[in-house]
Amino acid sequence: MEIFDTTTFIPPFALDIDLETGAMPDATNHLVRNASAMKGHYADSAAFDALVANGDPLHYEVFEKPVPEEYGHLMYCISKLQPGKVGDEFFMTKGHYHTVVQTGEIYLALAGEGFMLMKTQDGQFHYERMQRGRMVYVPPYWAHRSVNTGSEPLISFCVYPGDGGHNYGDIETEGFPGRVFEKNGEIVIE
Amino acid sequence: MEIFDTTTFIPPFALDIDLETGAMPDATNHLVRNASAMKGHYADSAAFDALVANGDPLHYEVFEKPVPEEYGHLMYCISKLQPGKVGDEFFMTKGHYHTVVQTGEIYLALAGEGFMLMKTQDGQFHYERMQRGRMVYVPPYWAHRSVNTGSEPLISFCVYPGDGGHNYGDIETEGFPGRVFEKNGEIVIE
Repeated sequence: MEIFDTTTFIPPFALDIDLETGAMPDATNHLVRNASAMKGHYADSAAFDALVANGDPLHYEVFEKPVPEEYGHLMYCISKLQPGKVGDEFFMTKGHYHTVVQTGEIYLALAGEGFMLMKTQDGQFHYERMQRGRMVYVPPYWAHRSVNTGSEPLISFCVYPGDGGHNYGDIETEGFPGRVFEKNGEIVIE
Repeated sequence: MEIFDTTTFIPPFALDIDLETGAMPDATNHLVRNASAMKGHYADSAAFDALVANGDPLHYEVFEKPVPEEYGHLMYCISKLQPGKVGDEFFMTKGHYHTVVQTGEIYLALAGEGFMLMKTQDGQFHYERMQRGRMVYVPPYWAHRSVNTGSEPLISFCVYPGDGGHNYGDIETEGFPGRVFEKNGEIVIE
């Protein structure tokens, strides 16, 4: 159990989160991914190349004020995924496993609508609807990717273990077992 | 690192939380503490006895749908603390350390107003204001107790490590280094 001895002592703190917009004014880390960061992730590579050539728009952002990346601490963030499509496929995040694959994550959606796609390394697939007030439990071992199927940003508050880390693993090569498209005005996962 | 191997695999799930009232219809655990559960915690024991004799009102509740209490999982809850006073002292929760003292907790206040009081086993004391949208980071090693200084329930969404557990430790005998009173119409911590 010696990993427990490495947990850093810090004083408590608080910060404000706008529960309508997800604004976190005290965030000190701001991860920005434009469309070009998603190369290889969408089914329609011609539509993707056109989107990048046409201004490479903002895709998603993550806001956080980090704590020690250690056992016992809890990382938290605001995730903000823009609405839009690449061809018929809705905008999504890269998705990740945790480096310590046995660590889960909680997402509490504050605004927008979409899905959380989840998969395991042995091929299981699951998705849950996201909308304001919906909490998605991403258990240990499940990679997770959010997808925005609405017309406004999909905004979530997330919490995960400080020692969890991020691992893109097989996602860049294998993707997820399901993609979310708009076809004939309907949202379909296939 | 053998503790990692004990993390139970479960499928993902989702549930709804009303971001205004904290209602969690899918909760399967409902902890209820009436005033009498708080014996010994308030400064004015005569006022406490009178409150209990006068109907022993609801004090606080915790709503949750449990996941495995193991490393890598994340427990979550809605905490709902009623408004009121015992003599001049505002209603509060018992407060706890985690059994694994090196595990922290995140509280996101949804409604009401009050304070999170925090202390360490070696006597450090810290408090943070709670109000809608305020996230309090309770780091590893800090015991924590919430106090309702408003006229409506103080409602928070909480997340903590699955292996954290609860330990009332020295709180029942030592209390916290500060108490929250109303004196001459002012909120004071002393």
